[in-house]
Parts: sequence; C-alpha cells; structure tokens
Amino acid sequence: MAIYHPHADRGFTTVEFEQRTAAAQKIMSRLGLGALLLTNEPEVRYFTGFDTVFWLSPTRPWFVVIPAKGAPIAVIPEIGGPSMSQTWLSDIRTWLAPQPGDDGVSLLATTLREVMPAGGVLGVPMGHETHIRMPAADFEALRTRLTNVKIADGTEVIRSLRMVKSEAEISKIARICSIASSAFENLPNLVKIGDSERQAFTKFKIDLLQKGADDVPYLVGSSGPNGFSDVINKPSDRLIEKGDLLLLDTGSIFDGYSCDFDRNFAFGHASDEAKIAYDLAYRATEAGLTAARPGITTSQLWSAMANVLESGGCSAHQIGRMGHGLGMQVTEWPSLMPEDHTLIEAGMVLTLEPGFAFGDGKMMLHEENIVIREDGAELLSRRAPAELPIITSR
Amino acid sequence: MAIYHPHADRGFTTVEFEQRTAAAQKIMSRLGLGALLLTNEPEVRYFTGFDTVFWLSPTRPWFVVIPAKGAPIAVIPEIGGPSMSQTWLSDIRTWLAPQPGDDGVSLLATTLREVMPAGGVLGVPMGHETHIRMPAADFEALRTRLTNVKIADGTEVIRSLRMVKSEAEISKIARICSIASSAFENLPNLVKIGDSERQAFTKFKIDLLQKGADDVPYLVGSSGPNGFSDVINKPSDRLIEKGDLLLLDTGSIFDGYSCDFDRNFAFGHASDEAKIAYDLAYRATEAGLTAARPGITTSQLWSAMANVLESGGCSAHQIGRMGHGLGMQVTEWPSLMPEDHTLIEAGMVLTLEPGFAFGDGKMMLHEENIVIREDGAELLSRRAPAELPIITSR
Repeated sequence: MAIYHPHADRGFTTVEFEQRTAAAQKIMSRLGLGALLLTNEPEVRYFTGFDTVFWLSPTRPWFVVIPAKGAPIAVIPEIGGPSMSQTWLSDIRTWLAPQPGDDGVSLLATTLREVMPAGGVLGVPMGHETHIRMPAADFEALRTRLTNVKIADGTEVIRSLRMVKSEAEISKIARICSIASSAFENLPNLVKIGDSERQAFTKFKIDLLQKGADDVPYLVGSSGPNGFSDVINKPSDRLIEKGDLLLLDTGSIFDGYSCDFDRNFAFGHASDEAKIAYDLAYRATEAGLTAARPGITTSQLWSAMANVLESGGCSAHQIGRMGHGLGMQVTEWPSLMPEDHTLIEAGMVLTLEPGFAFGDGKMMLHEENIVIREDGAELLSRRAPAELPIITSR
Repeated sequence: MAIYHPHADRGFTTVEFEQRTAAAQKIMSRLGLGALLLTNEPEVRYFTGFDTVFWLSPTRPWFVVIPAKGAPIAVIPEIGGPSMSQTWLSDIRTWLAPQPGDDGVSLLATTLREVMPAGGVLGVPMGHETHIRMPAADFEALRTRLTNVKIADGTEVIRSLRMVKSEAEISKIARICSIASSAFENLPNLVKIGDSERQAFTKFKIDLLQKGADDVPYLVGSSGPNGFSDVINKPSDRLIEKGDLLLLDTGSIFDGYSCDFDRNFAFGHASDEAKIAYDLAYRATEAGLTAARPGITTSQLWSAMANVLESGGCSAHQIGRMGHGLGMQVTEWPSLMPEDHTLIEAGMVLTLEPGFAFGDGKMMLHEENIVIREDGAELLSRRAPAELPIITSR
C-alpha cells in the first residue's frame, strides 16, 4: 500500500482560486469586459493551478477563458487534459494538437461566442510585460471569427491582481528565499580560487536543489578582477583567481514561485574601491528597507535608494530601475524607477536592487527580496553580510 | 595570470552566423521580404549567438532585424548591451528599458525605416509554433509608425533554416544526448523503491548536471502501479512502490541545444501487459529508425511506426504526433503526423516518439533522438534497452 505525502504547502485551495477569479471578474466588470482571454503560462497557472514545464515546447497554444461569471474554462491540447483535470476546473475543452490548419482557433471561438452570446468586449493582455502566446496569424483568424466582439487591453486585470500576493503565495516565495539564502551562505564552503565560473555555478545550482529548490531556471552572474561589467551573463570557462569579485544572481523556484536576489564575493582579497562600492550598495538597500511601506509610490522607493547612491557620488540612472515585483515570474510588475508611480500596498513582494557603475566601468549590484506589510518591509531573503565576504580557500 | 579555457565546442564561428544570415536573406528575397523582424529567444540566438536566461523576465522586449543585405541589427535593452557586444554583431542599438511609454518601439521603427527606406514588406514570424514576444499594443504602435510597410508572415524563413542543422549544431545535440543517456543508464543506481517522485527527479537532475548538462529545464514524467496516464506531469510526493512503472522525459541543455527523450523503468517486477506494451513501443521505434532517411516525408515516417502499433492492436492516433524536430528548443518543426508532409532532409534532428494507450487507460511512450544522414538515421541518444528494465533495490 503506497503512502502518499501531499504536502500541505504545495498548490492552493479551491477557495483561493475562486477568490482570484471573483476578483478578476470585479475588475472586468468595471472595465466593461465580457470575458478575458489568457494565453501565457503564469496567467493560466494563476487562475487554474495548472503547473507544467510543457510550456517550454512552442508547438501548442494553451487558452483559458475567464467569463464574466463562473469558473474559468480551459481550451487546451488533449495532451494536457489529464493534468488540467486535476485542477479545480470542470469545464475543460480539448483538441488533438498540433493541428496547424486549426490549432484550437475554432474551439476557442466557439467557447468565446458561448460566454459572450451577445458579443461585447473581450479583454486580452496587450500591455507592458505581456505578450500573446499564440501564432499571430491564428489570433487574426480568431478576431475574424468573432464578428460582434471588440478586443481591448486586459493587462490591468492581471497586473493589479498579481501584484498583491496572498499569504499562501508569500509563504512559497519566503520558502525559496530561505533556501537560496542558505545556499548563498554555504557558497564559501563550495567555491574556491581556481574553479571556473561554470564549476562554481554548477556547485551552487546542485546545492540549491539539495536544499529543496524545485528548479534553478535563472542563474546569471559574472567574475572579474576587482569586478565585472555585465550582470546578465551565463557562466563561462573563465577561472576565478585571487583579486576577483564574483556575482551570482538566482531566480530559483519552489512550487512555481521564484526568488530573485544576488550575492557578491571577493576572492583572496578585495580592493578598497570594491569595499566602498559594496558598502554604498548595502546602505542604499538599507534605505530601501526603511522606506518601503504601504502608501508610498514605487518612484519614491526608488528615490530613497537613489539618494544614498548620489550621496556616494554615483549615478542611479544607469541600469533602468532598482527593483521590481516578483512571484510567479522572476520579474513582474511594478518597476522601482522614476517613471513608475504605482502605489505600494501590503502584500506586494518586491526586490530592492540598487546598482551603479564604479571604478573603470565595473558594476556593483545588491538585491534583497521583501514583502510589504502594514508597518513596513519584511525581509524574505536573509540580509546580505554588511561587509563584502572574502573567500580565501583554494 | 588567469588561464582561460574557451572550449572549442561552445558557441559558433562567425562564418556560421554569416552563412545563416545569407541563407535567410536568400529566402527573404524569394518571398519578397525587405527585412525580417525577430522577437523570440531562439530566433535572436540563431542569428546572433546571444545566449542569456534573461529572457525569463517578461519585462523587456528584445529585437533583431535581418536586413535584405548585411549583418543583423540588434535593437535591445541597454542591460543586454555588454553581452550582445561579445557576439559577431557590430550594429547594436540600445534603449534604457523598461520604458513602458515607448519600450523600444520608436528605436525599432527608426531602424526598420533605415533598412527599408522605400518601404516594402516586413517579414514577421506569425505561423505555427511562433508567437510575437512583445506587447501586442506595442506591435500595433509599430505598425502604425511604419506607414509604407506591409507586414507578412516570415515563418518560412526561420522554419526552413532551423529544421536542417549544421554539423556544429548536431555535435552539441549529440553531446547532451550522450550526457542524458549516461544519466538514464545510471538511474537504477540512484532511484529506489520508497523514493518519492520528487526525490527521484531531483537525483536524476543532479546527476545530469554532474555529468555535464548546463541545465535541465524540461523534466517531466509519472509513476504508477503498472503504468500512468499522464506524460507531462511534474513530479509529485507520491512514493514509488513495487509494481510501479516510472517514466522520465528530459530536455536537458548543452550550450543552448536540447535533447528530448525518455526512459521507462519498472520497480520490483513488471506485468506481462507492461512488458508487451514496452516491446511494442520498442519495435515501433525500430521501424522508425529503419524508415527514417532523406526523401521520405514526415507522414511516411509516422506511418512506419504507426503500422507496427496497429499490428500490435493499438491505435496510433491518440497523442497527436509521434515525434518532432528539436535543437534550440525541446520541440521544433516538423511534426511526425499524418497531416504533416515535410520532406525529410539530411541534417534534420528528430525525435521518434511512438506512444499509445494500453490496459486500463495507461500510456506507453518511447523516445529516441536521431539525426538524418544521407544513408539513413544516426542515433544521438543511446538506444533504450530492448527489454523493460526492472529496478529491484530498495
């Protein structure tokens, strides 16, 4: 007799999915949308709980329709039927994909006509940080079939919902932040002078998996003498040597939720210049931690960090933003930058990510993950060391 | 003094990128396209070599323009400038993203007007297995700015090029197939009765990384008494017990190229029913290996496998296709199915993937990876055992 261990901390309750759907329908009603069409992995997962890496295959489109009332309807390739039927959804319509001549288009059109019998406005996310994941020619074919339906941007529905996390979502992000914190703290025991970047990254990735990460899809960084100038690199075969700085930045996953933070390490010794830059980034993050609270805007939170950088003689305008939302994806709305004036609310999960150039074109970048509580920021990542850690082993 | 080890087997020569670009331009000329606009990770990487997991962040669009003549032009967020400048491209135009009001749209429009000064037809992949990775509203804004430009489907350019692999591409796929073959062969030493699916998958993933995989983004499978009915599952906390079948299916990566094959294991003992199903799938794959050669079509290759399944009393029409292309993505064009009549050419890398239902709704699925040579199929994965392997350790 098998013993099943369905962990209580995996998945979400049906009540939570019902609440998400009802909240979406409230915004849809305000915007005058008769239905919402979703085509992307996080959007589909947010409303259904459908969680598969099958999305890596570009072959098949997947659709979820949120009607004005009632539960979401899945319109998906038959191969996903068994998985989808394990979610809270009961209305699951499948076709045998791939079928290039009509890859779900007529089934989707039929479904949309059914939920919007009198026509009206169909919401489709078309704004910032979205895209339509289906062949553009098929989207045009869908439009043509929906003669009495107007299409309007539905970004606001998913943006406003997904920006504010539930406690169940926060606990998943907290868990992966804790796992990644432990792996970063253990890194000096794993990585040595003489390792290649690739070896160092692989050791770190395996440690993350052993500590309980489900996956490590996002791992970037760089190493170089006294610093580096590129912060989105994959690892190379460059050997880490005495005097190097090493940055690792990971978006690891627990139950579909991501952390996104980095840590810096020096090898052998660190220059005063690097130590000063590290200290400046640390103090900018401190200012962000102090400032972050409900009621201020993302641009104000940006300013709190930027002021520290400017006081240290550095420009805060070089990397485009100094933090962002995260959760189901490694980056989500909003952005912490001068042009973004999103009102910060309790339940938002954000990165604080002050970065700037120092020395001869080197970059310094710190990052922490926080959740906004009624009384201010709560750290989800364990705070980086106040001083640049130096790894001396070889 | 640092010692760099730039492995000869990473990346591609500039000559190869020039050849890809020239080949694209030849097809573009035939189709009457004045330029080609690319927005997706594999498309951008295919023509530039730009290789980063930063694409996991949905925040920023990335563009590459293939002009009618000359090298591709990158129109990308500033954060990608340092990485892109390490590729063979010299014309790299950046903007400080995110900038929701104009996230690269005007810079892209300027670039397109420059390469198509007299207007004409701009190719954008809009067909099967493609999508446009930028906000739909921004794509509309781009269209509006390009008053004398018509937009047409450019899928054929990338489809026909990417379906036939270069020797350099094949060697990367061969390498990850070899790594995954070794990990599958080692699995009976790692996974035991009493392990949870999650433990089994994590052990396998760590072994893949230790054996030289850069990453394991795609790992699905299932376990169950005498079989399972869902083949795209993530692992659960279900414990593997005596009498189970376990399927693991991985798309692991080496230098940006993917394998995609699976293996089946029984635990403790296997039923005659399962052994017979395994044998049938094995023989169907053999038929595919024998049939695969230049000059036949994908539907003919499908038939070669389907005939074996039908002769065994099973229907071949249940999972939609029995194989597909692979390379930069875990699935690519073409599909092995009755409705796809792509002419098979030397240099194509394909999966052979016969699958069918047996017993009380269980699925049997085998998969191998091959490259088409002038004289037939060459296996890239090491052939699965002829008989269902049984793991007896606990």
